[in-house]
Formats: sequence, C-alpha cells, structure tokens
Amino acid sequence: MRILVDANVPGAEACFGPLGELVRLPGREIDAAALRNVDALVIRSITRLDAATIDAAKAQGARLRFVGTCTIGTDHVDQAALARHGIAFASAPGCNAEAVVDYVLGSLLTLAECQDWRLAERRIGIVGVGNVGGRLRTRLAAMGLECLVCDPPRAQREGSDGFSDLETLIGECDVLCLHTPLVREGPHATLHLLDAQRIAELAPGTLVLNAGRGDCIDGAALRQRLSGQGDISAVLDVWEGEPGIDPALRDLASLATPHIAGHSLDGKLRGTHQIYTALSRDLGLPTRLALTDLLPDPPVSRLALQGGLTPDEALRLCLRTVYDVRRDHDSLQRESRRLGMAKGFDACRAHYPLRREFSTLNVELGPHAKALAQWLQGAGLNVD
Amino acid sequence: MRILVDANVPGAEACFGPLGELVRLPGREIDAAALRNVDALVIRSITRLDAATIDAAKAQGARLRFVGTCTIGTDHVDQAALARHGIAFASAPGCNAEAVVDYVLGSLLTLAECQDWRLAERRIGIVGVGNVGGRLRTRLAAMGLECLVCDPPRAQREGSDGFSDLETLIGECDVLCLHTPLVREGPHATLHLLDAQRIAELAPGTLVLNAGRGDCIDGAALRQRLSGQGDISAVLDVWEGEPGIDPALRDLASLATPHIAGHSLDGKLRGTHQIYTALSRDLGLPTRLALTDLLPDPPVSRLALQGGLTPDEALRLCLRTVYDVRRDHDSLQRESRRLGMAKGFDACRAHYPLRREFSTLNVELGPHAKALAQWLQGAGLNVD
Ligand SMILES: NC(=O)c1ccc[n+]([C@@H]2O[C@H](COP(=O)([O-])OP(=O)(O)OC[C@H]3O[C@@H](n4cnc5c(N)ncnc54)[C@H](O)[C@@H]3O)[C@@H](O)[C@H]2O)c1
Ligand SMILES: NC(=O)c1ccc[n+]([C@@H]2O[C@H](COP(=O)([O-])OP(=O)(O)OC[C@H]3O[C@@H](n4cnc5c(N)ncnc54)[C@H](O)[C@@H]3O)[C@@H](O)[C@H]2O)c1
Repeated sequence: MRILVDANVPGAEACFGPLGELVRLPGREIDAAALRNVDALVIRSITRLDAATIDAAKAQGARLRFVGTCTIGTDHVDQAALARHGIAFASAPGCNAEAVVDYVLGSLLTLAECQDWRLAERRIGIVGVGNVGGRLRTRLAAMGLECLVCDPPRAQREGSDGFSDLETLIGECDVLCLHTPLVREGPHATLHLLDAQRIAELAPGTLVLNAGRGDCIDGAALRQRLSGQGDISAVLDVWEGEPGIDPALRDLASLATPHIAGHSLDGKLRGTHQIYTALSRDLGLPTRLALTDLLPDPPVSRLALQGGLTPDEALRLCLRTVYDVRRDHDSLQRESRRLGMAKGFDACRAHYPLRREFSTLNVELGPHAKALAQWLQGAGLNVD
Repeated sequence: MRILVDANVPGAEACFGPLGELVRLPGREIDAAALRNVDALVIRSITRLDAATIDAAKAQGARLRFVGTCTIGTDHVDQAALARHGIAFASAPGCNAEAVVDYVLGSLLTLAECQDWRLAERRIGIVGVGNVGGRLRTRLAAMGLECLVCDPPRAQREGSDGFSDLETLIGECDVLCLHTPLVREGPHATLHLLDAQRIAELAPGTLVLNAGRGDCIDGAALRQRLSGQGDISAVLDVWEGEPGIDPALRDLASLATPHIAGHSLDGKLRGTHQIYTALSRDLGLPTRLALTDLLPDPPVSRLALQGGLTPDEALRLCLRTVYDVRRDHDSLQRESRRLGMAKGFDACRAHYPLRREFSTLNVELGPHAKALAQWLQGAGLNVD
C-alpha cells in the first residue's frame, strides 16, 4: 500500500503513516507519472486531476484506487473520470467551516467596537445556510441571538418554513453575512447576488460581510455605495478577480482580508482527518486516530475573567486572544503595498501564520456568571 | 476635621473617610465659599486654585491647612499663595507614569505587527528621562533592550555619563519616544523640540512617538513629512491645540489617541493614595491603607501560554488582553467624526473606559520558558 500525499498536507504522517508507505510530493509535481505504483492519493486544490491525467495514469498501469482532497472545493478533480476507472473519491466538506464562523464573529465584534454598538442589538441575516452558514446560525442561536436565514435551494428541498427571501433580509437585517457558493446560472444563481439594485436598497448602517465567494457581490456597485454615500460598511474576505483585487474596494472595506477566513490549523487537520477516515473506511480499517490526537496544544490555553466586563467586551477579549482579524487586515494592507496587489494577496496566503480556532481556549469565570458562560460557550469557547 | 474632595477622585471614601468628615463637590464648584470650614482639600486639575481664591477663602476665615492635587501637573494651583498662608501642598508626581509606559509598549508592539518588525531589532531613544521616560527605560532594560536617552537638564545636574544629545538619538535610533514637559524658553526649551529641520533629518523608517506634550513637536512639519515622503510613522497621544487638533495629522498618524496615555484606573488610585499619604503625614498619622487595598480585581486576571509564540507575539497578546491601544485610536476617529474634532476629543476623555495596568495580569508559562518569563516580566507583567 503506497500513499502519495501533497507535501503541504499537515498531519499526514500521523494519519497515513500507519496505513502504508507514505510518499510526499509538492502538489504541483503530482502528475500522471507520479501516480505510478500509488494506491491512494491525497491532494489539495493546487493539484489538477483532470480526465487526461487520470486516463494517462491508468494507461501507464497505475493501481490507484482512492483519491481524497483535503479541501471543501472539488473543482480541481474530474470525479466522473475517477468513477469511470472505479476509483473512490472523497473530499472534506465543512472542514474549515468553524474557522469561517470564528472569522465572522471576530469581525462583527471588531466592527461593534469601532462603531460602538452591541451584538445583541443587531439583527443578523445569513445568506447561504450550508456548512458555514448553518454553523454560524447554530452559534448565534446558542448565544441567544435569533437571525433571519435565506437559502432558496434548501427552502425548495426542505420547505420554506424558517427560511426568508433575500428581499426580507435586505429589508430587515442590520448585518448581512454571505456564505453562498458561486453559481453562475439557473434559478438560484449567486453571481452578483448582491447587484447594484440590491446594494442601493441596503438601509444606512447596514454591514455587509462576504466570506463566501467574491463574485456573489457586484464589487463596483459596492465600492460606489461605500465611497459615495459612505453610510454602510463592508467586511470582505473574498473578492472579484482574486488575487488582483480592486484596491479602492480594499481601502473602503472596514476589514479587508485575503481569502483566509477558513485558514485555521484545526480546519486543515480536520480536512486531513476527514480524508483519513474516508480512506480507512475504503480499506475496511477502523479509524484509530481521533482528530484531537492530531491537534497540538494551542499557544494560548486559558484565560481567567473576573467580571466587570460587558458580554461583548468579554467575548471580544476571549476571541482576540485566539485570533484577531485585524492582523490579517493589516497584513493585506502591508503586503499589497509592498509587493503590488496580486502578489501581496498571494503572499499573505502563502505565509499565513498559524491560527487556532476559538474552541481551543478555556475560559475561567468567577461564580454567578451563568449568563456570561452561556454567551461565551455559545460563541464557541470552552468555559469551565 | 473636614475634608473636601473633588467628586471625581476615585478611592476617596476608603482613603479620606477614616481621617475625618468627607465632603464631595464637583471640581468646577470648588471656590472660596466652598472652602469655609474645610481643613483639607483634595482636587484635580479642573479646580483652579489661584491666589485670589486662596486669599478670599482665608479672608472668610477658612481653616484650610492642606491642599493636595491627585495629578502630576500643578499649573492649576498657586503654590506661592498657599505657602504665604502656611497651607501645606502635595501633588502626585509619576502617579500615572506606568500607564504611559504601558501605552508606549503597547503602541510599539502594535506598530511592529502592522509593519512586520521585531522589538529587539529596533534601537529606541528616549527624550526626557523623568518619571515616565525613566520608567520606560527601566522596563526596556529589564527586557534586555538597551536604549539611548537624552535629558540635558539631568545631564547638567548629574553629569553627562549615560546621556546622549538629541542629534545622536536622531542619527542612531529607529524609534524616538518623547516624554518631555513643555518648556517655552531657556537653554532646555522643549517647544518644537522636534522642529522642521530635525523632522527632515529623521531617517526613513523612523517611528516618532509623543506622549509628553503636543507642543514639543512642530505638527505642521510632521504632517508634511508624513504626507509628502510618507517614509516615517508617528504615534501621537498629545497634540498642538488640544482638543481642536489637526485632523490631517490625526489621519496620518499610525495611532492617534486623545491624550489618554496615562489614563489607567491604577494611575488614578495611585494619585489618590499619594495624596492620602501626604495628608496622613501632615496630620502625623500612620498610613494604614496600602495602594493594593484600593485596587479592585482586574477584569482579566490570568492568561496561560503554552509556547509556540515568538517573544513579540507572546508579549503583544498579553498586553492586549489588558489594554489595546487601537481601541482608543478607533474611538478618537469615531467620536471626532461624529461630534467634530474638539468635542469628539473631549468626549473620548470624559467617557474613558476603565483601563487597568499591565501589572494586573498574571501570566502562566509552561516549563523551560525562562527567557520568555524575563521578557514578559521586564515588560511589566506578572509571571508565575
Ligand atoms: N472565505 C473562506 O476562506 C471560505 C472558507 C470556506 C468556505 N468558503 C466558501 O463559502 C461558501 C459556502 O461554503 P459551505 O461550505 O457552507 O458550502 P455549502 O455548499 O455547504 O453551503 C452553501 C449553501 O448555499 C446555499 N445557496 C446556494 N445558492 C444560493 C442562493 N442563490 N441564495 C442563498 N443560498 C444559496 C446552498 O443551498 C447551500 O446550503 C462556498 O463558496 C465556499 O467556497 C469560503
Ligand atoms: N500623555 C499622557 O497622558 C501623559 C501622562 C503623564 C505625563 N505626561 C506628560 O509627559 C511629560 C513627562 O512627564 P513626567 O512625569 O515624566 O515628567 P518629569 O518632570 O518627571 O520628567 C520630565 C523630564 O524631561 C526632562 N527634560 C526637560 N527638558 C528637556 C529637554 N529639552 N530635552 C530632554 N529632556 C528634557 C526633564 O529633565 C525631566 O527629567 C510631561 O509633560 C507630562 O505632562 C503625559
């Protein structure tokens, strides 16, 4: 059993080492020739596995039986070609969804501080209630915050109960969080889902946050609204034309980050672990390793609060000891000025610092802090 | 024994209550009439105690024997007039110096993160080595960071050993921290100590920090260098023309705060305690109350680090759980946009949130972190 794993997949030794002979290669070097004598392949999105590559590998006698990508996206893999050759396939849906929710909560609390409002006063709308949006809704609900959600494909499948349409969210929400994939056509297309007209309809004071896909917002229209009236704000992690994004829009966004909302170490290891689980199942083996076995100790493990803070202050403080979104905003500003936009954008992603998820922090509260405990726990922290 | 204390002096009940009958009045309402039947007076800078007021009070038969101001400044009190009437006087020099040093360290680490440099790589120069500058030097030295210091009045009194002149600091330092009082004339005048010529001499990459007095820098010249060449940076807490400061300079400063560097609760209570000590001594009484008796529990009391952070990252994280300078930067931006410059500046100061000093945080480190412990302890944190 030979397992070829992209050299940039963390946790690979621990997961795949016990299953067979582990071979590592940079993702770009994984081609048909590299697949000779390989039984299982574990990649990231940098490796393109199109039909031609798969057919060529098979023609050269590759015994490949399993392909896993440690990513939520699967555009880089021709799944039909794999199926034609009877090769099993797995991806890692939702592996970094918690990290994106961390990003969203951290961003909201940062804007709340800058603009002087409190989270519980704002009505939040979630557009796209899949792995990310669904978890965001769960955490907000656990914090006691009801929100409006919009997901027409799900409403169609599951019934419209509990779902609102986008117009309702635009009319009633103070915060709009976009967590939709890019769908170019069809009844539920998301390309410019927020187009010039909808952007014009946003009430003054609205905050738009996009951590889904850049093309879901008409960037030029958003830029115009931000620079002209300047009465709404934006938090943008994804952009049209990445990595060569619009510098004016970057400057107008309250937080502008280089598509890193999901970049936690926990998320990456969760992706590895999901593929490890799928491969083990494919091989008929038990999964001996738990995700927690892979996770190293976090740099900050414990924070003790004594009281005297408002719920927002306490939460903001806890979140920031784990991950402060402003760091990524600052580094995009700096690197894009230093290297130019596209290179700076990519450099931030390539040298992304180690980031942990909120769930790695244990918060110690004094007695009589039951409501605060629920609030912090709901947001994803551990309270003891 | 009747003690009149400004209503805004914190800790007054605990300190002065046991010494006599405590009366509170808003600082603005403390005039000659209010001093009738008062033995001791405790004020802040808002109360002007000029010769006329003191003479009038005495003429009305006031028995005043002690005046204390819980501030480092004494410009609001005519000490000669007090002496003429045999009234003892005390102020609270250095009471908020540790808070200013917190501000300086926090600002340096914030700039270091934004600009991607490390503290130990930079040569720091301190101009004005009194209560604030001296403590800054002590902390930096305890962190193993040698700096250059400039204080001609001290050099003249104590000998020039260990002191450098301003030209040397400008030529050799990456960071210039100004902690000088405003001296309008004489051989050691500080008015526009950094004038257009000296600002022109600053090497590209220099960071200028002013937490002394605004008039020590020629603001127009600094603005020109920042906007024209844009190759130096500034952290400004004090400004010419406060509170109606130059909005262009505010926008060009990397951190722009409304004269709050010294505004910690600890500093205020230390000021009260210094006056309590002086009054007790004046009355021939022992000082039963320690400063620590006055200080409430801090909101954040303990942070546990596991390793895996660089010295700067660890320090930045610890400092920010206690006090994050960016909060004050953001609130000046927001309030000055909302209310206009002068009103916004004053509003930030009037509604300043409770702030504690770095020394209130206990940091727990794993074993084998001796060097890190020394670094954090040197910076003013408690490590156990
Ligand atoms: N910024 C980042 O770092 C980051 C990280 C993870 C995911 N993402 C992106 O976020 C998006 C969501 O990720 P996910 O894992 O939750 O995907 P998902 O497929 O689990 O969920 C997407 C949801 O959007 C809904 N949807 C589709 N069309 C819609 C429409 N027109 N209006 C409203 N909802 C619609 C779908 O029904 C689905 O429920 C993806 O595009 C993904 O690439 C970004
Ligand atoms: N930003 C704030 O919130 C804040 C808080 C506290 C103090 N301050 C200000 O900071 C300044 C320093 O405060 P301090 O308590 O350390 O005062 P201090 O009197 O203890 O020290 C001032 C030092 O500056 C030196 N000095 C005088 N002229 C000089 C010159 N021309 N060049 C170099 N050094 C010179 C003096 O010799 C003295 O050692 C004061 O102006 C004070 O008002 C500001």
